[in-house]
Amino acid sequence: MALAERILDGDIRAAARLMRNIDDNLPSSRGELQELYSHTGRAFLIGVTGPPGAGKSTLVDQITAAYRKQGKRVGVVAIDPTSPFTGGAILGDRIRMNRHAEDEGVFIRSLATRGHMGGLSRSTADVANVMDAMGMDVVIIETVGVGQDEVDIVRLAHTTLVVMVPGMGDDIQAIKAGILEIGDLFVVNKADRDGADKTARELNLMLEMNRYAPGAWRPPVLRTEAQRNVGVEELVGKMDEHHRWLLESGEINQLLQEKNTSLFQTLLKERLFAEVYGGVARSGKLSEILEGMLSREQDPYSAVEQILAERLSP
Amino acid sequence: MALAERILDGDIRAAARLMRNIDDNLPSSRGELQELYSHTGRAFLIGVTGPPGAGKSTLVDQITAAYRKQGKRVGVVAIDPTSPFTGGAILGDRIRMNRHAEDEGVFIRSLATRGHMGGLSRSTADVANVMDAMGMDVVIIETVGVGQDEVDIVRLAHTTLVVMVPGMGDDIQAIKAGILEIGDLFVVNKADRDGADKTARELNLMLEMNRYAPGAWRPPVLRTEAQRNVGVEELVGKMDEHHRWLLESGEINQLLQEKNTSLFQTLLKERLFAEVYGGVARSGKLSEILEGMLSREQDPYSAVEQILAERLSP
Repeated sequence: MALAERILDGDIRAAARLMRNIDDNLPSSRGELQELYSHTGRAFLIGVTGPPGAGKSTLVDQITAAYRKQGKRVGVVAIDPTSPFTGGAILGDRIRMNRHAEDEGVFIRSLATRGHMGGLSRSTADVANVMDAMGMDVVIIETVGVGQDEVDIVRLAHTTLVVMVPGMGDDIQAIKAGILEIGDLFVVNKADRDGADKTARELNLMLEMNRYAPGAWRPPVLRTEAQRNVGVEELVGKMDEHHRWLLESGEINQLLQEKNTSLFQTLLKERLFAEVYGGVARSGKLSEILEGMLSREQDPYSAVEQILAERLSP
Repeated sequence: MALAERILDGDIRAAARLMRNIDDNLPSSRGELQELYSHTGRAFLIGVTGPPGAGKSTLVDQITAAYRKQGKRVGVVAIDPTSPFTGGAILGDRIRMNRHAEDEGVFIRSLATRGHMGGLSRSTADVANVMDAMGMDVVIIETVGVGQDEVDIVRLAHTTLVVMVPGMGDDIQAIKAGILEIGDLFVVNKADRDGADKTARELNLMLEMNRYAPGAWRPPVLRTEAQRNVGVEELVGKMDEHHRWLLESGEINQLLQEKNTSLFQTLLKERLFAEVYGGVARSGKLSEILEGMLSREQDPYSAVEQILAERLSP
């Protein structure tokens, strides 16, 4: 039986296999994803981002537990920094699995940040779609950092949670500014630490600079101590409130339009490049171009235009 | 006169204009870059990266001053987080320019992180190439963060400096691991703070895990206090040492091969996507696909394969 069919039948091992194939970028995975697509669109997608050291993994663990209490099935896609020496993900599924290892209502998958040829947001979207098709009610996508990559990944979610910690240093204004527009909710985690009030106040001040139209969502700033499970229930309540607001205000349509556009763009960009670059490499033209670049007799700009002229039909 | 010609004649305003055009992605800028390309390849490119709050801007300022003392011309490309409300770069050229504002041997340009449609590393490469063609001896590329985006940008450099600060929190192992393989030099900045020894020791320990072949470059771990200009001369000496090692060991060939491949891939990916996506959007097919995705009657995977079949000639 095809993987897609087995996944729709609830076969966890088939899901794990397809996710590995997605990770390895096997062409066969496209067919499976194609079949699963009509079964997606039901899960509530939550993006969690923030700087390293903010305690995101622990918080995601607690959020998972809170949703499990409500009887919901939870998928987690964790984007892990890659080890430069082993090539594998640093944290990995195993550490993360510990707490929920025995729970069939939780499915956790780590994606390493390397070896995706810029296709990390595509892989993440694909894995989230598999979890969605598996019938997960909530899919949490956790990323490390605040770069453009993370912003792209966060675009996959319905609701984005930005996790901060007290006292993050001089560049905090800059960091905050970069993330202000992607956050639907802000959390000051490790809220028992010095400076939690200050960080929350500063976040609120910066949010105030925005002018919210009537009926618009004004991102709340919450506090949690994920280690001691303090403030997590309230956080989950607020995330659900944001989800309801999306549906009731009709904002969901705009959001889905953006999410779908972004997924389509990502797929198109990656497939186009793979096909054309593969051809250039196989034909030996690549080595020619690289030699020319080295001697500066060939500039890459004209080389690219020539390839476009040859490979693109009008 | 064309911009490229004026830039080669030393016209600073023409360079600034071309950089704006690159930022705005004007098609005409490709022709100018094409002309400039044969005049590039002379500058020493230094990448500077590290987490927010590490004091990178101040350190880059001091490195710039140190190279100026040697009589070298210095270009700086600073990747700035974008303000969500104004859309502009947060720090901007103006703040950075202050110190070197009167110095014609220094050219500073900020690039905002948004609005590049994933083309930030392309814009950065283009701007660095303009500075190279202008005759800058050293071009410093400064990025915030440690995401894949930064890794791509850092690939443009000959020598990559990773800036850390003492006591960076729980996830430090993970952060370090993610950056260990991209750093040719490591700096613990703000070295007067508690924990500087510990951070330096941990970095050294992690580097020891790597096995260096005989004659290989073993990244040094240095200390600086950029604010007080402590340790900067030594740092610059070490960077120059790395540059010499690249040239003398012949490693430069491998590096240039990788840099050129990466630039070519970036240009190809971006131009292919722009052409094909533009066509899909103009023809009205995009709205059709997006409508189909919304109702789940159309999956994006088959849509993309169909476009490939139509637009790519064999």
